[in-house]
Amino acid sequence: MNSIEVCFSPALFDLHKDIESIVVVTDIFRATSSICTAFENGVNQLIPVSSADEARTYKEKGYTVAAERNAIVLPFADFGNSPSQFSRQNVEGRDVVYTTTNGTKTIMMAKECHAVVVGAFVNLPALNNWLQKQNRNILIVCSGWKNKCNIEDTVFAGAVVDYLLNNNYTTTCDSAKMAQMLWLQAKDNLAAFLKQAAQDERLTKKGLADSIPWCTAIGTTDAIPILQGNVLVNINRN
Amino acid sequence: MNSIEVCFSPALFDLHKDIESIVVVTDIFRATSSICTAFENGVNQLIPVSSADEARTYKEKGYTVAAERNAIVLPFADFGNSPSQFSRQNVEGRDVVYTTTNGTKTIMMAKECHAVVVGAFVNLPALNNWLQKQNRNILIVCSGWKNKCNIEDTVFAGAVVDYLLNNNYTTTCDSAKMAQMLWLQAKDNLAAFLKQAAQDERLTKKGLADSIPWCTAIGTTDAIPILQGNVLVNINRN
Repeated sequence: MNSIEVCFSPALFDLHKDIESIVVVTDIFRATSSICTAFENGVNQLIPVSSADEARTYKEKGYTVAAERNAIVLPFADFGNSPSQFSRQNVEGRDVVYTTTNGTKTIMMAKECHAVVVGAFVNLPALNNWLQKQNRNILIVCSGWKNKCNIEDTVFAGAVVDYLLNNNYTTTCDSAKMAQMLWLQAKDNLAAFLKQAAQDERLTKKGLADSIPWCTAIGTTDAIPILQGNVLVNINRN
Repeated sequence: MNSIEVCFSPALFDLHKDIESIVVVTDIFRATSSICTAFENGVNQLIPVSSADEARTYKEKGYTVAAERNAIVLPFADFGNSPSQFSRQNVEGRDVVYTTTNGTKTIMMAKECHAVVVGAFVNLPALNNWLQKQNRNILIVCSGWKNKCNIEDTVFAGAVVDYLLNNNYTTTCDSAKMAQMLWLQAKDNLAAFLKQAAQDERLTKKGLADSIPWCTAIGTTDAIPILQGNVLVNINRN
């Protein structure tokens, strides 16, 4: 029987890392929600980069660049990290370079593993279906906030754990069990539950509250972004 | 208003560290439960050491030594880490050197902070009362298992958070909020809830299941061990 683990912070990744596993990276508010939205809206590929300097170099070469730090769009970027900005008009058919405070760093950190896929509530049902068919151990890595644990990524991890434990997966990972318990508390009123997250308050203070309902909606896309080499593509591309 | 934070793993301590805070270190199964028991049974002082080599050196000097790794008593030690071994007969009036896989390392890691106290379910009511009177920010550090997060330490942290949030403390820490949610799920049936912990299974496999009820009993002692220099003494000594 295959197993599922959860890693609550990128700073704990080395403790959980198994290069044979599929890694699901999540950063609900907002990186992975936006990445899924970009593929729903027909982006060709996303190029995740860890540093703002790398993103600037791509911009100088003519790429479209989405870049922010601490929920603020960087001056050289075309746009930031809210899902609404990954509109069809902004991304369809393009290669888009992407960097954020937390999520994109986590994606690149996991690149040695068997596969790195991007998860969010927006693609949860499609992701769960796909994961279940892979017959392989799974590790969910929460991007957190500057390496601290956060509520929204943990609850998302719990949603995947809950599905897989009901579909022939097993776990001995306490973090996975705690995440599942929190998801079971949250699931019947997800948006209200996630109002408790510190990031909800940060986004609201920065005038970005409109992106929160976008990130807490379940199953608005079938896109499953997967890392191929150094770029993300959609494994469910039609 | 003072704040409370929770750190889910010693590996995340630097993210939460504030030298002005009181640090509560917990390692429910079994280090901090045993330390509290030792003071209940009249130990003079406990000398926590991080490495097995240090513990061996103390043993060669004639100290009583409690030492284990991976829930196995080290060959040179007088006894291990189960609370039952910190009996009045074994510890009363003595200075006892102590090292474990997780808990004692965490205590020494926090020594630069304003104060380091030891928490467990066995001293929870006394600890909560004392903390509330200190008028100072508090950080609870979960010792976990080899830096991975665990259920029992998280639930204990949640018990302290829940008390302090109801007694004029505040938090913006997502880990503190998640710990509180888990405590509220656990508190009416604590022993059964903690059966889900991986460490419960590890202890049971090693024939140490008898220490589990000891560690999940609430309020069996008023002892509050506190770090003074490099040794632990009882702040509530009669």
